[in-house]
Amino acid sequence: MVITKDNHLESKKIFKQLIVDLPTLAGGTQFNLGEISLQIEGKDGLGGLIEEWFGVWANSYRFNIYNPKIAEGASQEFPDYYVGSSRDGYLEIKTFDADASPNFDIANFESYCESLADNPFRLFSDYIIFSYKLNGSKLKINEIWLKKIWEITCPSAAYPLKTQNKRGIIYNIRPASFHSPKKVSRFPVFNSPIKFINALYSTQQQYNQNTTDKINFQKKLSQNNIDLNKL
Amino acid sequence: MVITKDNHLESKKIFKQLIVDLPTLAGGTQFNLGEISLQIEGKDGLGGLIEEWFGVWANSYRFNIYNPKIAEGASQEFPDYYVGSSRDGYLEIKTFDADASPNFDIANFESYCESLADNPFRLFSDYIIFSYKLNGSKLKINEIWLKKIWEITCPSAAYPLKTQNKRGIIYNIRPASFHSPKKVSRFPVFNSPIKFINALYSTQQQYNQNTTDKINFQKKLSQNNIDLNKL
Repeated sequence: MVITKDNHLESKKIFKQLIVDLPTLAGGTQFNLGEISLQIEGKDGLGGLIEEWFGVWANSYRFNIYNPKIAEGASQEFPDYYVGSSRDGYLEIKTFDADASPNFDIANFESYCESLADNPFRLFSDYIIFSYKLNGSKLKINEIWLKKIWEITCPSAAYPLKTQNKRGIIYNIRPASFHSPKKVSRFPVFNSPIKFINALYSTQQQYNQNTTDKINFQKKLSQNNIDLNKL
Repeated sequence: MVITKDNHLESKKIFKQLIVDLPTLAGGTQFNLGEISLQIEGKDGLGGLIEEWFGVWANSYRFNIYNPKIAEGASQEFPDYYVGSSRDGYLEIKTFDADASPNFDIANFESYCESLADNPFRLFSDYIIFSYKLNGSKLKINEIWLKKIWEITCPSAAYPLKTQNKRGIIYNIRPASFHSPKKVSRFPVFNSPIKFINALYSTQQQYNQNTTDKINFQKKLSQNNIDLNKL
């Protein structure tokens, strides 16, 4: 894995081509079962459909991407895709309705805290994010971003890291309003890996006094000669 | 709302027609975006697609069903559909891969505990459950059931009610292996509303000492003259 603050080279190429294709990215979903054929108007499954489409689209341009669910079996939790000829980049695909704020789950909060301690390189995953408009059953991709996790996360009133909370339980890491850079937000994005990491593990400590994941993460970081302060 | 242990009359009619149509229920999902058209092979969004298809299918037979997301706005959490001319039946649509065990979320555990205390009639919701086979992109409905919640839930080793647990946190109520009645299970389904309710609130008490929801539920029950022991 290339340790870099910047986006993986292959992700950048993919993103560039997506931006070229963006004006043509319109379509929809047709579902057939028995006598009934319908144009889908629900948004529930759209994220999964766009993720699967992305793989076919990228292969049509012969980009170096690999679907671990196909390559390594279905139990793979992350990433959505590996990128690069040596499969050393992690690429996640996220989607949200352009008429609302980004509301996708970035990751399960506790799993992510622990996962980084196993694999600190996950911190450097690329995120390709699609906003879409669904007008009846007519789908149109509205905007596309290539981001790092610290560019789409922010603090919140409840915790140093914005999360999805219900009845005192933290479920998922949730995105900032990164999509409207002109809007002045009370909680801007972290914009640095170290600020994100500090917020992540402060939140965990505040939430359930767990400091083990943070300590393990820092051990793994130094074993791999990564200094977040220098990134 | 008709208080009955039995399934709602309209749900029964719908179920009967579904069983008639079952041999014809094959199809698939085509997703188009830009130059790419693909037959979807992922299962992630399938539940939502079948739920939307169900509404169109039921309308084609002029069954009395109403989608509250359309009738009352998107914020509606349950049911998936109202059934009956006076919209007095609750109908939930669930799906699972016939090659695996049922693994759908019946409901968020804590929300359900509280929700019953607001609306005890939710206990009598009908569940129409589809198992499917997806062979590549070729979809086939395998079996269909009409059930009550106490017919698809069971105890577990961890709690009186089988739930999805991660790191000590209970997320969702999860189904029993109700689909293979011949298999002798260590944890058979409750098969009675009172046994299910006892397991639900015992689990909540064991989990977080909350007894408020149980007390409120019982208050609402007696206000509505429902005696679970007589059902």
